[in-house]
Amino acid sequence: MENEKKLGSIVSEVLNLLEDKKYIQAREALLANNEVEIAEIIEELMEELGMEKTIILFRTLPKDVSVEVFAYLPLDDQVKIINGITDREIQYILDELSFDDMIDVLDELPANLVDKILEKTPREERKLINTFLNYPDTCAGSLMTPDYISLQKDMTVAEALAYIKKEGMDSETIYTCYVKESGRKLQGIISLRTLVISEGDEIISNLMREDFVCVNVFDDQEEVSEVFKKYGFLAIPVVDRENRLVGIITFDDILDVIEEETTEDFERMAGVMDSTDKEYLDISVWKHVLNRLPWLFVLMCSYVITGGIIRTFEDGLAKVICLVAYMPMLMGTGGNSGSQSATLVIRGMALNEIELKDAGRVIWKELRVSFVIGIALSSLNFARICWLDGEGPIVAATVCISMIVIVVAAKSIGSMLPMLAKKVGIDPALMANPMIASLTDMVSVVTYFTMARVILGI
Amino acid sequence: MENEKKLGSIVSEVLNLLEDKKYIQAREALLANNEVEIAEIIEELMEELGMEKTIILFRTLPKDVSVEVFAYLPLDDQVKIINGITDREIQYILDELSFDDMIDVLDELPANLVDKILEKTPREERKLINTFLNYPDTCAGSLMTPDYISLQKDMTVAEALAYIKKEGMDSETIYTCYVKESGRKLQGIISLRTLVISEGDEIISNLMREDFVCVNVFDDQEEVSEVFKKYGFLAIPVVDRENRLVGIITFDDILDVIEEETTEDFERMAGVMDSTDKEYLDISVWKHVLNRLPWLFVLMCSYVITGGIIRTFEDGLAKVICLVAYMPMLMGTGGNSGSQSATLVIRGMALNEIELKDAGRVIWKELRVSFVIGIALSSLNFARICWLDGEGPIVAATVCISMIVIVVAAKSIGSMLPMLAKKVGIDPALMANPMIASLTDMVSVVTYFTMARVILGI
Repeated sequence: MENEKKLGSIVSEVLNLLEDKKYIQAREALLANNEVEIAEIIEELMEELGMEKTIILFRTLPKDVSVEVFAYLPLDDQVKIINGITDREIQYILDELSFDDMIDVLDELPANLVDKILEKTPREERKLINTFLNYPDTCAGSLMTPDYISLQKDMTVAEALAYIKKEGMDSETIYTCYVKESGRKLQGIISLRTLVISEGDEIISNLMREDFVCVNVFDDQEEVSEVFKKYGFLAIPVVDRENRLVGIITFDDILDVIEEETTEDFERMAGVMDSTDKEYLDISVWKHVLNRLPWLFVLMCSYVITGGIIRTFEDGLAKVICLVAYMPMLMGTGGNSGSQSATLVIRGMALNEIELKDAGRVIWKELRVSFVIGIALSSLNFARICWLDGEGPIVAATVCISMIVIVVAAKSIGSMLPMLAKKVGIDPALMANPMIASLTDMVSVVTYFTMARVILGI
Repeated sequence: MENEKKLGSIVSEVLNLLEDKKYIQAREALLANNEVEIAEIIEELMEELGMEKTIILFRTLPKDVSVEVFAYLPLDDQVKIINGITDREIQYILDELSFDDMIDVLDELPANLVDKILEKTPREERKLINTFLNYPDTCAGSLMTPDYISLQKDMTVAEALAYIKKEGMDSETIYTCYVKESGRKLQGIISLRTLVISEGDEIISNLMREDFVCVNVFDDQEEVSEVFKKYGFLAIPVVDRENRLVGIITFDDILDVIEEETTEDFERMAGVMDSTDKEYLDISVWKHVLNRLPWLFVLMCSYVITGGIIRTFEDGLAKVICLVAYMPMLMGTGGNSGSQSATLVIRGMALNEIELKDAGRVIWKELRVSFVIGIALSSLNFARICWLDGEGPIVAATVCISMIVIVVAAKSIGSMLPMLAKKVGIDPALMANPMIASLTDMVSVVTYFTMARVILGI
C-alpha cells in the first residue's frame, strides 16, 4: 500500500514536469528509483500520457538502465517501445537482454520485423533463436534459456571458479552449473554453494550430483512448475528427446507460470474462456464478450431442460402457488453446496492431495458432511416456514425433506464431477461453479416437485 | 503422471516386502530413490500402513537421509513421527533441520513437549526459538530464518569467500550475503555472483548494493510474496521496527505461501471458511461442516428475502403460471454473468492489474459487455420461447427484456461489489460467486416480476 502511494506521487511529479517540458528534471525524478520501480512508473505513464511521450522519456534514460527497465516491463509495453524506437536502439536492447526475455519479445513482434532484426545477427545465433521461437507457447522450451554455465568433469574446483568468474556475467544463473559428457548429454549438476565450500583442488566429477531431476523440452509448463514446487530448485535443466541438455529454466520464470496457471483455473471455474494473456482493462469489449458468451449460452441451454421440467408440473404448481416462493432458496442452496464441494475437490486435486483412487473416501466424507448440513438447514427452515411464513407443516415438510435430498445430491455431484472430468481427461476446473450450479438446479427442481407431488399431491 | 505411476509401484513393492517382514529389502527399495521421493513414499505408507509401522521403517533410514526426508514431509506427518520416536532421535532431527523448518515443527507440537525438547538447548538459542515461535502465523517473521551469511563491509572479496567457505554449511542460503553496521542495522546486500566474478582484492563496501528492498517482520506473508514476484529475488532481508536485520526469507518458502494464499482465495470464493491448513481428506466431518455451514446459512437467509419478494407476486403469478418455467434460466444466467465479472475483477485486483481508481473504466467496460451479451442471449431466447415453447410474443418479450436488464445488473454488481469490499477493507474474494449469486437472484426476481406486472399486468 505504501509503495503504491509513493509510486503514485512520483508519477504525478513526472507528469507535472513533463507538462512544463522539464525533461531533464523528469529524467532525474525517474532515476531516483530502482529499475523495477522505474518500470512500474513507465507502465503508469504509458496509460496516462500515451505511448509517444512515454517513449521520448524512456529514450532519455542511460543505456544500461533502459535495458534493465525494459526487461521488467510487461510484454505489451515492450512491444510498443520496440515499435517506437530506432533499429539501432532495438539492436542494443535485444543484445543486452537475457536470452529468454529476448525470445519473449521477438515472439510478440510481426514476422517481418523479426526478420529485419535478425538480419545482423550471426548465423549460428539466428538458428538458435529460430529454434527457440518455434517451441509451443506453454511448454518447457518456451521458458528456458541457453545461457547456463557448463563445466568439464575433470576440472578442479579452482579451475571451475575461475571459469565461472570469466563467463558468469552472461549467464542467466551461476548458482547451478552443468556438466555434460560427449554428445551434449547431461551428466551431472553442481551448485555454486558446493564449489564455494569445497577445497580448490577437488575434482568436479567427485562433487557433482548425478541423480539430478530434469524436464523434457516439450513438457507442459504446469508440470515444470510442479517440479519446482516439489524440490524447491533455483533452476532445472531441460533436455531433448535424446537426453541432450538444451537449456535451463530458472525459478523467477516459474513464478510467472504459477500466476498464469492460477488465473486460468480461476477463470475456467467462473466460466470465462480467456485466450489472451492481456490484462482485464486492455481486452476489448468484443473480446470480453467472446470470452464469456459461449459458456453463458451453454449454461442457458441447460435451463431449457430445467424450464421444461417445471412446465410438466405447471398445473399442480398453480394450485399450491406458495411452493414457488421456496424455489430460489432450494436452487440457490443446492448450487452453493455443490460449488463448495467442487472447489475443495478441484483444489485438492491441483495440489495432489486428492487422487482419483480416493474417490470412495471423498464421496463417503461428502455424504456425511452433506447429511449433517442438510439436517441443520432443514430444521431452521421448518421453524421459519411454519412460524414466520405461516404455512402448514405439510408444505414445510415438503420444502425441508427436499432440502436434505438436494444438499446431499449437490455435494455428491459437486465432488464427483471434477474427478470424473479428470478421469476422462477434461480439465476439472471447467466442471466448477457454473456447471455444477446448472446441474444442481435441475436436480433441485425435479426433487422439489416430485416431493410436492408425493406429499401434497399436486 | 509417469512419476505418479513409478511412485505407486515402489509403494506397493515396499508394502509387499514389509508384509513378508523383509525390512532390509524394504529399506533398500526406499533408498534407491532421492530424498524428495522417499518423503512422498513415506507419506503414502502413512496412509496405507498406519503410523506405527511406517515409523519403524523411517527409523531404519541412515540418520542423514532421515533428516532430509523429514524436512520434505508435510507438517502433520512430521508431528506424527516426532510423537513416535525417542527423545534422542527428536533432538538429532531438530538439530539437523534448518532453523525455519524446525520452528514450523515446534509450532505444531504441544507446549509441554516443546519445553521438554528445548530443555537441552543452550539458553541463547532457546531465547531465539521462543521469539520465532511467537510471531503470528501469517507474518514475515513466521517464514524467516536467522541462518544467513553476515559479512563485514571492510572485508576483501577473498576474505569474504573464505568466510563463506567456513560458515556456508549452516546457512539457509549463501547466494545473498548481508552487511550490517553497528547496532545490527542492515547496510547493504551483496550476491555470491558479484563476489565470484569480482577480483579478490576488491572491498565489499564498494561492491554491495545499498538500495536493497526489505520487508518488516510483521508484514503479511501475502505482501512478502508480492515483493518476491515483483523483483524475482532468491531471498529477502527481514528487519524489525528499528530497521535491525532479524532474518531472511528464501524463495522456496514463498512458493508454499503462494500456494496457501491461492487456496485461501479459491475457498473464500466458493464460500468455504478454512481455518486449518490440513488436507481435505484429513479434515474431520464435523470440521468440514463447520467450514461450510456458516456461509450456506448466511446465503440461505438472503433467500428468505427473495422468497418474500415472490410471495408478493403470488396471486398474479398463479394467473400466468408459465412465467415460473423461465425463473431458473433468468436467475441462473444472472448468477453466472455476475460471477464471471466478479472473478475477473477479483483476479485483476489480486494481480494489481485493476486498482480502485479504475472503477469507472471497469463499470464502463462491463456495461458495454453486458449489454451486448444481454442482447445476444435475449434474441436466441425470443425465438426459442415463441417457436419451441409456443408462448405468445408478449410473454417472450417479458422474459427477454428482463434478461437484458438482469445481465447488465448482474455484471455491474459482480464487478463493483469486490471493488467496494476492497475499499472498505474486506477481502474481495469473499464477495465472489455465492454472495453475488444471492444478490443477483434477488435482482432477477424483482426485475422479472416487475416487468411481468408492467407488460402482462399480473
